[in-house]
Amino acid sequence: MFDPLEKLKEFIRHPSVSTDPRFADGMRGAQEFVAGLLGTLGFQVEVVKTALHPIILARRGGDPSWPQVIIYGHYDVQPADPLNLWQSPAFEPVVRGARLFGRGAADNKGPLMTHIAAVARLLERRPDLPLRITFMIEGEEEMGSPSFPAFLQAYQHELRQADFVYLSDTGSPRPEQIVITCGLRGLALCEVEVTGAKVDLHSGLHGGVLRNPIQALAELCASLHTPDGRVNLPGFYDDVLDVEPWERAELAKLGQSEAQYREFLGIPAFYTAQGFSPFEATRFLPTLEFNGIGGGYQGEGTKTVIPSKAFVKISCRLVPNQQPAKIRALLHRAIAERMPKDVTWRIIDQHEGMPYVVVPPDRSNTPKDQPTILARAFRATDRAVTEVFGQPPLYLREGGSVPIIADIKRVLGLDSVLMGLFLPEDNLHAPNESFHLGVMEKGMAASEKILEAIARG
Amino acid sequence: MFDPLEKLKEFIRHPSVSTDPRFADGMRGAQEFVAGLLGTLGFQVEVVKTALHPIILARRGGDPSWPQVIIYGHYDVQPADPLNLWQSPAFEPVVRGARLFGRGAADNKGPLMTHIAAVARLLERRPDLPLRITFMIEGEEEMGSPSFPAFLQAYQHELRQADFVYLSDTGSPRPEQIVITCGLRGLALCEVEVTGAKVDLHSGLHGGVLRNPIQALAELCASLHTPDGRVNLPGFYDDVLDVEPWERAELAKLGQSEAQYREFLGIPAFYTAQGFSPFEATRFLPTLEFNGIGGGYQGEGTKTVIPSKAFVKISCRLVPNQQPAKIRALLHRAIAERMPKDVTWRIIDQHEGMPYVVVPPDRSNTPKDQPTILARAFRATDRAVTEVFGQPPLYLREGGSVPIIADIKRVLGLDSVLMGLFLPEDNLHAPNESFHLGVMEKGMAASEKILEAIARG
Repeated sequence: MFDPLEKLKEFIRHPSVSTDPRFADGMRGAQEFVAGLLGTLGFQVEVVKTALHPIILARRGGDPSWPQVIIYGHYDVQPADPLNLWQSPAFEPVVRGARLFGRGAADNKGPLMTHIAAVARLLERRPDLPLRITFMIEGEEEMGSPSFPAFLQAYQHELRQADFVYLSDTGSPRPEQIVITCGLRGLALCEVEVTGAKVDLHSGLHGGVLRNPIQALAELCASLHTPDGRVNLPGFYDDVLDVEPWERAELAKLGQSEAQYREFLGIPAFYTAQGFSPFEATRFLPTLEFNGIGGGYQGEGTKTVIPSKAFVKISCRLVPNQQPAKIRALLHRAIAERMPKDVTWRIIDQHEGMPYVVVPPDRSNTPKDQPTILARAFRATDRAVTEVFGQPPLYLREGGSVPIIADIKRVLGLDSVLMGLFLPEDNLHAPNESFHLGVMEKGMAASEKILEAIARG
Repeated sequence: MFDPLEKLKEFIRHPSVSTDPRFADGMRGAQEFVAGLLGTLGFQVEVVKTALHPIILARRGGDPSWPQVIIYGHYDVQPADPLNLWQSPAFEPVVRGARLFGRGAADNKGPLMTHIAAVARLLERRPDLPLRITFMIEGEEEMGSPSFPAFLQAYQHELRQADFVYLSDTGSPRPEQIVITCGLRGLALCEVEVTGAKVDLHSGLHGGVLRNPIQALAELCASLHTPDGRVNLPGFYDDVLDVEPWERAELAKLGQSEAQYREFLGIPAFYTAQGFSPFEATRFLPTLEFNGIGGGYQGEGTKTVIPSKAFVKISCRLVPNQQPAKIRALLHRAIAERMPKDVTWRIIDQHEGMPYVVVPPDRSNTPKDQPTILARAFRATDRAVTEVFGQPPLYLREGGSVPIIADIKRVLGLDSVLMGLFLPEDNLHAPNESFHLGVMEKGMAASEKILEAIARG
C-alpha cells in the first residue's frame, strides 16, 4: 500500500492548469500519474481522447451481478495566480500544521486521492471484493467540462450499467460535520440587447425624441422582480417542488448565524422572499439575477451621448423540478410583452443546466419496494460518516450548480452520492489552497467502509 | 484688403488640435496667425495666458459713447482622426466645388475668418466707424473651454462694458436659410453608484439573499420617467418657461419631416412628451438621459456573478428658467427616497451649465422703453440676413448646450447674437469637414452690414 500523503504531494507537483496551454506538460504529467497509479492498483486503464484533455476511465470489472460504482474526480486545477500571495509555491506541496498546502490540494486532488487510497486499502485487504469500480476522472472540470457530455453520450451503454456515482467535489462546514449534497440548482442564461437609434446620438441635439435603450432596459429589469423579492414572471414558480420539513430541519442543524452572514456579505439588509431564511433562500428558491449590464459611456467623467445599444446578462438559478427550456420561454414571452415598441431588441440564449435533487432513502415520503443499491449506498455513507467523524452527516441542497451531476442524471440515469470533503478554510480557487489532513484520513476510513458495505452482501 | 479665402487656407494649415500635445506647434502657429492678422488690421492685441492655450483679446477702442461688440471665436480644432477617411489631407485646405475642405474649415476657422474679413472691409471703407470692437478668441473650445470662466471673471470689469456678444459657432439648415439661435439648453450631470455586497459574489452560493445592485439601479432608473415620456421628478417642470406661440410657428417654418427624422435616427417610433413634436421636444423640453451604465461582467459569454457595484451616468438637459442646482436637489431627493434600504449608494455630482435664452426684440411680449443696442443688433441682423441671403432668418432655440454663452450671460450679463453659418453637410468633428464658400461670401456681406448698422447712428 502506498503512502497517500506522499502520493498526493506527487500529484500536486504536476501543475495541471487546464485553461492555460503553457501547462500542457503539467496536464499530461497529472493525467499519466493518475492513470499509472490506478494501473498499479490493478485497474484496466483507458485514456479517452477529447478535443483537449483526456478523460481517464479505469475499470475493475467482475461478475455482472456485483454492484457497480463510478467514482468521479478531476485531475485539473485552477490557475495559481496571483502567485505572490502564496506563502509557499503553489506547486510545491508542503505540510503546515494539520494541512497540506498546494494548488489543487482540496479541489480536487486531495479528495480524489482519498478515494483512490480507500480503494487501494480495501482491495489490499479484500482482493476478491464483489464490487465493480470505475474511476471516471476528467481534466476539464475547471473549464466547465466542455467534453464531458459528449463523452457520456459515447460511453453511455457501458456507464448506464452502474448503480450510482460517488464523488467528493463539494464542501462541508466543519471538519467534524460532513454534508451530503443532495440537491443542486440548475441554470438558464441569456443576454438581452436593446437598440435605440442606429448610432450614439448627441444628447443635446436629439434628447427628448426617443427612448434611451438604457431606459428601456432598466424598465425591463425593474419589472422582473416583485417588491417582496420574488421573480415576476407568471408561471415561474409553478413547477417548484415544495420544501420538505426535514430539509428545513436539516439545514437548521448547521447553526449558521444570519448576523454573521450579513456581516460577511457586507450588506445593510437581506432581500429574501417571505417565508425563507437567507440560508433557505439560496438552496430552495430559484432566482433571476443580473450578472452584468453595459451601455453608453463608461469612462471617467462625462460624455453626453444617448447610446445606440445597451445590454444585460441574466441568469436564472433553477430548483427541482423547473425546466430550463420552460423558464427561458417565460422570460422570452415577458420580454416580448414588456419591451416598448419604440426600441428594437434581441435575446441571445446562452447555456443552461438542469437542477438536480436526490432524496436520501430514509427521508423519502414514497416507500420503496426494496432497497436499491443507491439506497444502500446512502445508508452505508450515513453509517460510515457517523462512525468515523462522530456525527451523522447532514443532507443539504446547495445553491450552486454542478452541471456534470445533472448531465450524469440526464444521460446515464444515475444519481450521485456527493460526500463533501473540503472546508470553507480550504481556499478553493484562491491563493494558499490547502486540504485538511484529518479530514483526509477520516475520509479514507469512511470511504473504505462505504465501498465495502455496498459490495454484494 | 486681404483675400479672405487665402487667409482662411493659411489659418487651416496650422494644425491647431487643442487636445493633443503633439500639436503644440500648430496651436502656437494658429494663435500667432490670428493675433498677427488682427494686429495688421489695427487692433491692440493682448495674448492672455491660461493654464494651457492662450486667449486672444484684440481691441479696437474708441469713444465710450460708441456701442461695443465682442466677437467670439476659437482657433482650436477637433482632432482629424481617422485620417484615412479624408479625401484630401486634413490640414492641406483645398477647394472642391463650392466648398473649402480642411479640419476646422467650418468649426470655427471659416466663420471666424468671415467676421474678421467683414471687419477688415468695413474699417477699410469707414476707418472712423463709431464702434468699439473686441475680438475674444479662445484656444480651448474643443476641450470644453476649461480656462474660459476664470478668464471672464478676471476681465469682467472691462468686458461688461460691451453691449452684446456676436458669434457664428452654430448651424443653419440650408445655405439660404439662416438661423439665429436664441436659446440653448443647460446641463446638470451626475453619476450614481450602487453597492450591494463587499465583493462580487457567486450567484449560485449567494443568489436569493441580497438585492443585486444592477436591480436596485434599474429600479431607480425605471422610476425616473413616466410612461408618457416625461421626467418623473416632482417639481422638475415647475420653472419651465412656456413656449411662446411664435416659437412654435418659427420652428414650423423649418419644414422638417418627422418621417425623415425617424428614418435618420433609425428608430421604430418616437417617444416624445404629449403636445410636442419631436422637433419641439428637443428644443423646448428638459430631459433626463442615461449616458452610460455599467456593472458586473460585460465580456463575451457568461460569468455568473452578483456584482458588488453598478453605476449609471445621468445628464439632465435644462431649459429656461430651470436652475441646475435646484434640479440636482430634486434628483438627490428622489434617489434618497427611492433607493431601497438594502443597498448602499452615492451620487457623484459632475458639471453643470445654465440654460440660455434671449428673446429677439420684436418677439417679446414685454414692450421695451427704448431700443437697446442688443435690440438694434437683432434688427440689423434680421435686415442684413434677409437682404443678403434672400430670406429672413429663423429664430430658434437649440437642444444642445454651449456653456460659454451661458457663462458670458452669468459673468458679464451680456446676451449673444448667434448667427448660424455652418450647414448639416459641413461634417463638423468628422472627416472631410468643409465650409460652404457661398455662405462665407454672404456671411461677410451680412456681417459687414450688421456691424455698420450697430455703430453709433
